[in-house]
Amino acid sequence: MIMHHKHGGDIYSYRQIQDFSANINELGMPESVKKAAEKAVTACVHYPDPEYRSLRSALARREKVEEKMMICGNGAAELMFALAAARRPSRAFLAVPSFFEYEQALSAFGCEVHHYPLKESCGFAVTGDFLEAVPEGTDMMIIGNPNNPTGQIVSRDVLEKLLSFCGQHHVFLVLDESFFDFLTEEDQRQTLAGVSAVSEQPDLFVLKSFTKMYAMPGLRFGYGICSNCDLLDRMREVMQPWNVSIPAQMAAEAAASETEFARISALRTAQNRSEMKRQMETCGYQVYESSVNFLLFRDPYAIDAATEGQDTGNQPRSDLHDFCLRHGYLIRDCSNFPGLSKGYYRICVRSREENEALLAVLQDWAKLHQRSAAQ
Amino acid sequence: MIMHHKHGGDIYSYRQIQDFSANINELGMPESVKKAAEKAVTACVHYPDPEYRSLRSALARREKVEEKMMICGNGAAELMFALAAARRPSRAFLAVPSFFEYEQALSAFGCEVHHYPLKESCGFAVTGDFLEAVPEGTDMMIIGNPNNPTGQIVSRDVLEKLLSFCGQHHVFLVLDESFFDFLTEEDQRQTLAGVSAVSEQPDLFVLKSFTKMYAMPGLRFGYGICSNCDLLDRMREVMQPWNVSIPAQMAAEAAASETEFARISALRTAQNRSEMKRQMETCGYQVYESSVNFLLFRDPYAIDAATEGQDTGNQPRSDLHDFCLRHGYLIRDCSNFPGLSKGYYRICVRSREENEALLAVLQDWAKLHQRSAAQ
Repeated sequence: MIMHHKHGGDIYSYRQIQDFSANINELGMPESVKKAAEKAVTACVHYPDPEYRSLRSALARREKVEEKMMICGNGAAELMFALAAARRPSRAFLAVPSFFEYEQALSAFGCEVHHYPLKESCGFAVTGDFLEAVPEGTDMMIIGNPNNPTGQIVSRDVLEKLLSFCGQHHVFLVLDESFFDFLTEEDQRQTLAGVSAVSEQPDLFVLKSFTKMYAMPGLRFGYGICSNCDLLDRMREVMQPWNVSIPAQMAAEAAASETEFARISALRTAQNRSEMKRQMETCGYQVYESSVNFLLFRDPYAIDAATEGQDTGNQPRSDLHDFCLRHGYLIRDCSNFPGLSKGYYRICVRSREENEALLAVLQDWAKLHQRSAAQ
Repeated sequence: MIMHHKHGGDIYSYRQIQDFSANINELGMPESVKKAAEKAVTACVHYPDPEYRSLRSALARREKVEEKMMICGNGAAELMFALAAARRPSRAFLAVPSFFEYEQALSAFGCEVHHYPLKESCGFAVTGDFLEAVPEGTDMMIIGNPNNPTGQIVSRDVLEKLLSFCGQHHVFLVLDESFFDFLTEEDQRQTLAGVSAVSEQPDLFVLKSFTKMYAMPGLRFGYGICSNCDLLDRMREVMQPWNVSIPAQMAAEAAASETEFARISALRTAQNRSEMKRQMETCGYQVYESSVNFLLFRDPYAIDAATEGQDTGNQPRSDLHDFCLRHGYLIRDCSNFPGLSKGYYRICVRSREENEALLAVLQDWAKLHQRSAAQ
């Protein structure tokens, strides 16, 4: 069995690990969502509603769009694959680093994928330059807003240019807003919610997920919003009719009304993030701007480690990922993201106490190197 | 939103209905499965294991095959779509009537589908004639064993011919055994479990489901067994990595060891089925042989009903499906199955009490017609 890509959140390969590699809300699953999923088990002697009518209506109210513009998936990732299968783009342009499944889904259905490497000097933000580099024949773009693993939002100005470019050049645009709900109101004003443009732009697909905000990745639920109903019907044709389980439907319906939970989570995340970023920077890490519940950073000691061999302990010290692992913490090694390389890592922003515990390990790693540099 | 096919189990369009349209084990979900799914909700703050290691090992033990031959899906239906997307057959040959999603999955990925109409005179059994009718250029066949909606097993003799034909002519064969566990030991001896041939025949895919036997359609879980590991890898490439939710994984792992529950269910189903069949035949219905937990039948009064107009009550009496609905029972109108027509219905075999309650309605319908014929 080949696994094509190592992901975050692989707690199954380790025992008793503190997981900072998956970007899940540290507040956990709201009680209403948990209760709904548990209650749903009894209903599972029936098939799910293939039209998920009750859920669709709750989501449409939340998003203030027509019900017919909504499509639900077994996680947002399923919808990416269904979109690639239904739309069959021939050439896609991706700003990298970005979520790996974009490329897997596109390639699986024969699409040629071109990369635009985001600039480290701009903190990996998507800037206007991106549009100047779009290859001839591009018919799809996928942009994370905010982007994963960089945590960056796309500015309102760039996003407006992007929408206008795609409209003019008949490029199908996917805006992945899986982390959008983590934005504070202030950050939201710096960008644009895709849903506001969806009615006028039929070649725009907004991808949303409840996985991260409502801490329900194991239940699998995501949704999409698009005004091109023919495309949504084609997507349904390439998927089985009962793709969203009853626990996922009922949990998502409960989550749909938990908007206050989302608002509080966003505020709390912003505080914990800025504190964690500041402290990491004090230790010498290069931490990039983020508006969400994770931080991308570069380990300045990474290059030393490769040549350095052994540390003073009895175990080899090869890189920060393994160092953290030996101390019981799983962080995301980002070296396998196109556009990044060895020495880049991503961590989830968790509670203050949890962050401080990880920070102690990051400090130890830094001290080891500072000491050996001083010797 | 278009729905391409009306399915059984649509309890969402009706209130307070007794559902005989979905073929779910009347004994319900085993307690161990329910408990596992409920317990799983707490674990859903994590991503599912994309390699479902613990579950795969339990399934491999149950099926006595190597772990690498197993693939799991969000219901067996997802695997049908993934198989069509990964294998991309150009021409498929289906004995109809059969499960509608075979054709939907094949057509969605550009496969031309040819039908072989099973003969009513043979009780819709798949016979040797089927192989004589295989069109030139056929590269895929999908056979339900037992078949849905007919309930028929494929005899050992025919199945051996089928396997040999497919091996010789490089036809990829899918055996859908979603209902196989409902066979009594006696019925199992009349046919062949696909798993026994899977190692020698790399172009054989055995599709299994826990949905029906363990009454868990709402949780979504199915699996496939195939010795062509390259094909399984290609299937994984066209699916998202986290396709099986944690509740589905944990419930399925519990179900995997519930073999005694399956054995008892099969015996009980056989008793209830033969009693129900006998009584329906007494009322004049044409009931076909079945080895599983549902019965396909023809309503001999169907043609009358179309011309008859109104009955003595105040509601129009158009067909048996609507008549049952008005009495609180949902049965499966099979007129939209290719190979069947108006007047064919399918009912699930449920408990003796439930079956008798539905029987009373079927008797009323028969009496109405016998009375009007006598007048």
